[in-house]
Order: sequence, then structure tokens, then C-alpha cells
Amino acid sequence: MSGIHGHELPGRTSTGCGNSMTRRRLAQAAAAFAPALGRWGATAAQNIPPNIVIILADELGYGDLSCYGHPTISTPYLDRMGAEGMRFTQFYSASSVCSPSRAAVLTGRLPIRAGIVSSLMPWACGGLPSGEVTIAAALKQSGYATACVGKWHLGHQPKYLPTRHGFERFFGIPYSTDMSQATAAYPPFVQLLQQHPEVPGTPLMRNEEVVETEPDQRTLTRRYTEESISFIRDSLRRGQPFFLYLPHTFAHVPLFASDAFRGKSLRGLYGDVVEEMDWSVGEIRKTLAEQGADRNTLMLFTSADGPWLLQKQDGGSAGPLRGGKGTTWEGGMRVPCLAAWPGRIPTGIVSHAFGTTMDLLPTCLRLAGVPLPTGREYDGADLCPVLFDGRSGRDPLLFYYSKDDLRAVRVGPWKLHVATTSPDDAVVRHTRPLLYNVDEDPSEQYDVAASHPGVVTDLMAVMEEHRRGVKPGPPQG
Amino acid sequence: MSGIHGHELPGRTSTGCGNSMTRRRLAQAAAAFAPALGRWGATAAQNIPPNIVIILADELGYGDLSCYGHPTISTPYLDRMGAEGMRFTQFYSASSVCSPSRAAVLTGRLPIRAGIVSSLMPWACGGLPSGEVTIAAALKQSGYATACVGKWHLGHQPKYLPTRHGFERFFGIPYSTDMSQATAAYPPFVQLLQQHPEVPGTPLMRNEEVVETEPDQRTLTRRYTEESISFIRDSLRRGQPFFLYLPHTFAHVPLFASDAFRGKSLRGLYGDVVEEMDWSVGEIRKTLAEQGADRNTLMLFTSADGPWLLQKQDGGSAGPLRGGKGTTWEGGMRVPCLAAWPGRIPTGIVSHAFGTTMDLLPTCLRLAGVPLPTGREYDGADLCPVLFDGRSGRDPLLFYYSKDDLRAVRVGPWKLHVATTSPDDAVVRHTRPLLYNVDEDPSEQYDVAASHPGVVTDLMAVMEEHRRGVKPGPPQG
Repeated sequence: MSGIHGHELPGRTSTGCGNSMTRRRLAQAAAAFAPALGRWGATAAQNIPPNIVIILADELGYGDLSCYGHPTISTPYLDRMGAEGMRFTQFYSASSVCSPSRAAVLTGRLPIRAGIVSSLMPWACGGLPSGEVTIAAALKQSGYATACVGKWHLGHQPKYLPTRHGFERFFGIPYSTDMSQATAAYPPFVQLLQQHPEVPGTPLMRNEEVVETEPDQRTLTRRYTEESISFIRDSLRRGQPFFLYLPHTFAHVPLFASDAFRGKSLRGLYGDVVEEMDWSVGEIRKTLAEQGADRNTLMLFTSADGPWLLQKQDGGSAGPLRGGKGTTWEGGMRVPCLAAWPGRIPTGIVSHAFGTTMDLLPTCLRLAGVPLPTGREYDGADLCPVLFDGRSGRDPLLFYYSKDDLRAVRVGPWKLHVATTSPDDAVVRHTRPLLYNVDEDPSEQYDVAASHPGVVTDLMAVMEEHRRGVKPGPPQG
Repeated sequence: MSGIHGHELPGRTSTGCGNSMTRRRLAQAAAAFAPALGRWGATAAQNIPPNIVIILADELGYGDLSCYGHPTISTPYLDRMGAEGMRFTQFYSASSVCSPSRAAVLTGRLPIRAGIVSSLMPWACGGLPSGEVTIAAALKQSGYATACVGKWHLGHQPKYLPTRHGFERFFGIPYSTDMSQATAAYPPFVQLLQQHPEVPGTPLMRNEEVVETEPDQRTLTRRYTEESISFIRDSLRRGQPFFLYLPHTFAHVPLFASDAFRGKSLRGLYGDVVEEMDWSVGEIRKTLAEQGADRNTLMLFTSADGPWLLQKQDGGSAGPLRGGKGTTWEGGMRVPCLAAWPGRIPTGIVSHAFGTTMDLLPTCLRLAGVPLPTGREYDGADLCPVLFDGRSGRDPLLFYYSKDDLRAVRVGPWKLHVATTSPDDAVVRHTRPLLYNVDEDPSEQYDVAASHPGVVTDLMAVMEEHRRGVKPGPPQG
């Protein structure tokens, strides 16, 4: 997963695609990639560049969807999306906290490279550096319509807003909705905010303007959905391929559901919120189908990070996995992921292939026939062979970060922890690292370091090699 | 769930069906029930009596199938069975240990009523009393061909064998396969066996004869499957409706998979064993489809009890649920359950309705048009309204037993524990009972007894009323 140089990827060269590129020219660009793409590529080259929809829930745990085993949350639209496409069981976020995770989604790189090493507070001056190339920026350059609808959290100063990172449209909130005096509820955060009386009410923005302060959060999921559908329709009307990035505000606390969903779920308010997101996915899929665009759209649903267990009943469930948000246990990093593309992704596949949110950029760019930007390291890998050819996609390395602290590594079934988080959120550094076989022991219950000293040595070496090679960006805060 | 008297059920009277009853006569009997059966009944009455297949895994946890969220066990045939039918998320075993659970499956009654209060050891003299009426006995009386293939564990003395309880055919083992000197592995059990040198090698039986001693357990799942398919074909050839009860030996320890499955699963041997059971389900469904019998067959898959967590990697996973085998936490009692009947059970339903293994008898008998035996209490309820009409099936009471010890009760979302099991298998009696809202808190993490004293009082009263009313059978051991 580490050490892939953009300029070393086979068949990937800059073609200098401009804004004026039409669907036809994009198709030609995609065709130029075909020789390197195998079976799926042959099909891809015959088609126009696909629309891409990435929906990112927040702090939705591995176990929070019905198709991942939740007993009382109903998610029929997401279940169907998985059943009509691919459901991943070993898909990871690059971080178990908000801002770093989002940096990785959009840049295809470990968040440390962009200097996004912790969640950006409302008094932060930093954000995603202008030198970073987002999926949106790359696709916009190639003629895609682009929109970000929802939670940004990569810098609220003007120069860091979505509109400065390739998104033609932005409707949403620049950070988490528990980041104002009115909405903070988590005690440590309330304390922090008391030291910052200058922090404004939660701003709801359209492009670069604040259009509402402290918006009624019960309306957010519905309004995000409406905005997304409006963007999809506008793009289709213009015959322009589109990239929609929809990072939901929820299921991050504080939780709000509209009247139509409040009290609907057996699981309580948390379930109501998840069920409203499920409805939203259904509405978007319905729109795509009605507009005849579903067969030319890759839709992917995942979560920014694991459930915030410290929020108790207001936090989600990692299902069988250990730990949650803010930890590098599987429950913090492994997230639900569903991918659908009728007629292209085979139906009903449960994939055990590795995947990470950092794979989205290489995947989207390859599908659009856009070369990977050069001169930078990418940590993500192209998921197309997994999505279209059922390949295993098992990469030998996965590096997990929490903040700028390398704590664990996974190679094949093995996961080595040099530091972990205790249930009460304290860091535990292990002089003798912990080793788990997470294929056989997904709940990380049985440390087998003592009986596998060679594996421990190998994984320590992988970690050390990565540490030596990675170049951290200037820390943003 | 408690206190349903057979003779009080509407429309249920003895019709004295004999062995000679043909499909036509059975159809007439089913038609006689139609007025009480609602929408699904109207259809049922037009049809011939259905074949019924009940497959019971052993100690397969709530989280052990892919469709219940297991990350590395592949169960495509079971997943498809659920997707083409109904997947229950709140289905319970009547006990979290082997023999009581099996008594409840076959009699529709709490195991305490039959006196099956603990697992029957190979030196036991007791078994399922002859006064109990099993599903097989009732259906055989009405013209069904009946077979039990697999693990019996309701008495190995001749008078308690399946052949004495309505099964025309039996092929399998009378108890658990860790119950001989050669195969015992769990330390407390090894100790017990040492005191019983007279215990024979594990007997594999055909009807009432031991045909092999210490059979090669790697062959069991395959041979059970072949025997089941042979029975299905024989019955169809004769034009006779059939009842197949297939209680697998696994995933109870010791674990064995055939060469074709050994090493196949990412999850290790436990996963191999589950994947071979999944294959078995696929073979049976394929047979039914090839023989044109799938649209006249109700097929149900569930587990006898929760995972044996003390077996560590050789035990299963309860997914998000707390506890396992031998406990009355949800993980011990709540089990996977899939029901399929093409053309009859709607496809793709995830049901949150309550169900228990005790519901199988009333359900099967109603489908076959056979009246419920009178003069006895039934704890199970007819699941037909849930299966065919999507009704909620929420019964106000569920009583959980471990041995003869009433420890917990569930009414709607509320579950009250007066005693629980600690992770190291000790009983903890609570002078202040624990109360969980298991809809909102399926992992039983947040005791809310203090804030809901009225619910505690109500549930204590329900428990007390049940205690006063239930009549334990003579204990079998």
C-alpha cells in the first residue's frame, strides 16, 4: 500500500486534459489506458467516462448496517446496493479520526503526507495544502462536474475550502457539528470550546458563503440529499460526467434525524440517523435509475472511521471488531464499504479483498482515463481489478495511523501493534508488540506474538522501513 | 411465548389422521384450517402439504455467517438462502446447551417440561420421554416420510432413539462427538470421562444399530449430506411429503472438515467447518430445485445454541452480542435463522420479528394441516404470519433457561437478568436484577434498571408468574 510512485505506474502518463474535454475525448483517453487494464479495461474503453458517487458516512461502525449484521437497524437500500454489487469485509479507513481520514479519501495518500495529523478544530488556521491534488481537482481538470455536499473538515479558512480543491459546488458544513458552543456535548470538547469564545455558531455554507448559522440539524440529511440530486440532474442535463462527494454529517454526534425518521428505528436515535442515511442512498440510486444513468455510474458507500464508542448509545457498533474511533484496533479502522455499478460490478459479491479509502483516487482517475498526478507518493492502489475482475487485491502492506503516530501494520492475515488504545482512551505502548491473525481472529482476542517471532520481526521491519521512507507534510492545525 | 394451551388454539382440533393419509387427504386437512390462517392460509389450502427441511447447526454463533457480518467466513449458499427468503435477527434457541435445545426444537416446548435440564452424558440413562410428541411423530402420523440425519442427543438408550420418536430413518450419532475417550479435548470433560471408562467409542448409527465406532469425523458432514439427499429423492420418488431434520455434528468441537474444505477458509478450521455446512445447504437446495420440489418445500436453517467461547479459536462468534454457549446473554441464546420457500416466503426480507426454535413444531404442524396435540402446554407460536404475511410476531414473553434455572426474561425490547454468567463461566446471582433495552443496546452494555423501576417490577412479575405455572418434567440424566 505504501511506496507506489505515481510516475512508476504502468501506462500512466500525463495527457494534459483540459477543461474543455468532452465525453468523447474522455472516452478516447480511457481507451488509451485499455492495454494495461485487462478484461474490465477492454469494456471500459468502449464506454464513456463513468459518473462517480462517493458517499461517506461519519463514524458509522463496521457492524451498523443490516448487511453487516446489525440486529435492529434497517438499511434496505444499502443492503440492496451491496447485494446488487460488492460488499467488502476488509476495507479500511486511513485514519480513525475525522480530518486525517478525509484527507486520505480525497488525496489517495496517507494523511501524514499532507500534514493532516489530527482533527481540525474551529480555531484551526490550517487545512488541506494547495499542493495536494484531490479526486475532484483531477476529474474537474478532465471535464467532470464536481460537487462536495456535506461535511468537509479539511480547513474552514477560505483557501482550504472545497471550492479551492476542485469542487465546483459545495453545500455543507466545514467541520463537525459538535464544534460550536451551542452543540458541543462531549465533555472534553465542551471544555476546549470554553477556551475559545470566539468560535462562531456552526456555519452552513454554499460555496464560500455562510448561508445559515446553527442550521436545524434535523434537516441536514434531507437537504444534502436534495442538493445531491439537484447536482446529478444538472450534470446529466448538460451531458457532463460528474463526481459527487457526499460526506454525511452523521452518524457523528450530535445526532439528529428528521421528523420522518425520528423514532422509526428499533435502535433508538442512532438507528434513526443511520436509517435516514439509508433512505438518502435509496433516493440517489432511484434518481440515477430514473435518469438512465445508473449503468454509467460507479457508486461507493463507506465510512470515514469507526464508531465513537465513548458516546455509548449515541455511538455506533463495530460488530465483532475490537475498539472504535480514535484507536488502531480493527473497530476503529475497518469500515463498511459497498460498491455498485449495474452491469459492470458483478452482483452479490462479498469480497475479502483488502481495500482502503486511499484507493478511491487511483480507482476514480483510472476509470475516468485521467493519469495519476506525478511527483508524489501514493499509498492507495487501483481497485478496478477487485471491482471488475474479482481479484484479491491483497496488498502486502497496510499502515495504520492515528494522528502522526504509527501504531500498527498489517501484512496478509497478520497485524502487529506497537501501541494500542485502552477502552478508556489511554495509549498503551507495547515494548513487546502484540500480534494477531486477523483473518482467523477478527476480534483481535488472541495475541500470538510469542509463537510467531519471525512474523513479529518481519512486520517490525516493514514498519521501520515505512517510517524511514515517509515524508511528513508540515503539520496543519 | 408461554402458556399457550394446545386445546385452546383456534381452529385446532384432533382429526385423527392416520398413516395411510395421502397427499390429497392432507390437502383436505390443510384446507380445513384455511379460515383461521388469513392470506397465506388461503394459498396454503390450494397446495399440497409442503415438504419441510430443518437444518440445525451446533454452536454456530450469531456472527458466524457472512450474511450476519462475519468478515472472513464465506457462506454463499446460506447468504443466498437468506436473500431468497427471510433472515431473522431476533430468533432464539430455547437453551444454550445441546440436549435441552434439541428437546425444544422437536417438541415446541420449554425443555424443562420434558425434564431435559442439561446435556445428556454418554453414561446417562434418560432421554426424551415417550410422552413427548415430536414434529416427526406428528407428521409421520399424518403420512409424512421422516428422517433424522446427524446429532440426536436426546437419549442414546434404545427407547429414546429417533426411531422411537417418529423418525422412520436415523443416520448419525446419538450425542456430541467429544464424548468418548478418543475425542474428548475440553479439560473438564476429559476429567469426567476418566471417571467413566465404560463409555464406548463414538457410535455412528443407522436406525438402531451401531454401524461404526469412532467414525472418521472428517467424513460426517459429507455423509450426512448424501444421506439427506438420498432420503429426499426416495420420498419424492414415492410422491410422499417429507420431513428432514438435519442436526449437524458441527460446529461443535472437536472440529473436522473434509479434505475438500480443510484449509479453505480464511477463518481457520472453524471457518472450514462452517463453509462445509454451507456447501451442504447448497447441495440440498440444488437437489430440491433439480427435483422440482423447491417450490413445495419450507427450508429452515438455524443453530442449536450460541458459540462455545471457552474453546477460543475453535469456538464461534456471537458477532455484536454478549456471551455465548452456556449463558443467557444474547450471544448464548440468539442464533442465526434463515427460512426459504420460493414463491411463498417473500424474498430478501430481514425480519426483526421474534422467533424461537420452539415455534417450529406449531409452524410445521399448521403447514401440514395437522392439529396440535392436545393436553399439553406449548411455548412456541405459529410463525406462519411472520413468514408469509410479514407480521411482527412479537410475543410479549420469552423465557430463557439454562438447565432448570430461570435467569432472564424478555418482553418487547426489555430484557431482565436475575442471574448471568461471567466470562470465566461462573454464575452471578443479582439481588438487583440487570435490565437492558436489547433493541437499542443489542450488546447488553448499558444496564438501565435504575432508571426503569416499573419495567423491572413488571418483568419480575412475568418471571414469577411463569415460575408458578410451569410444570417441570422428571429430570432426565
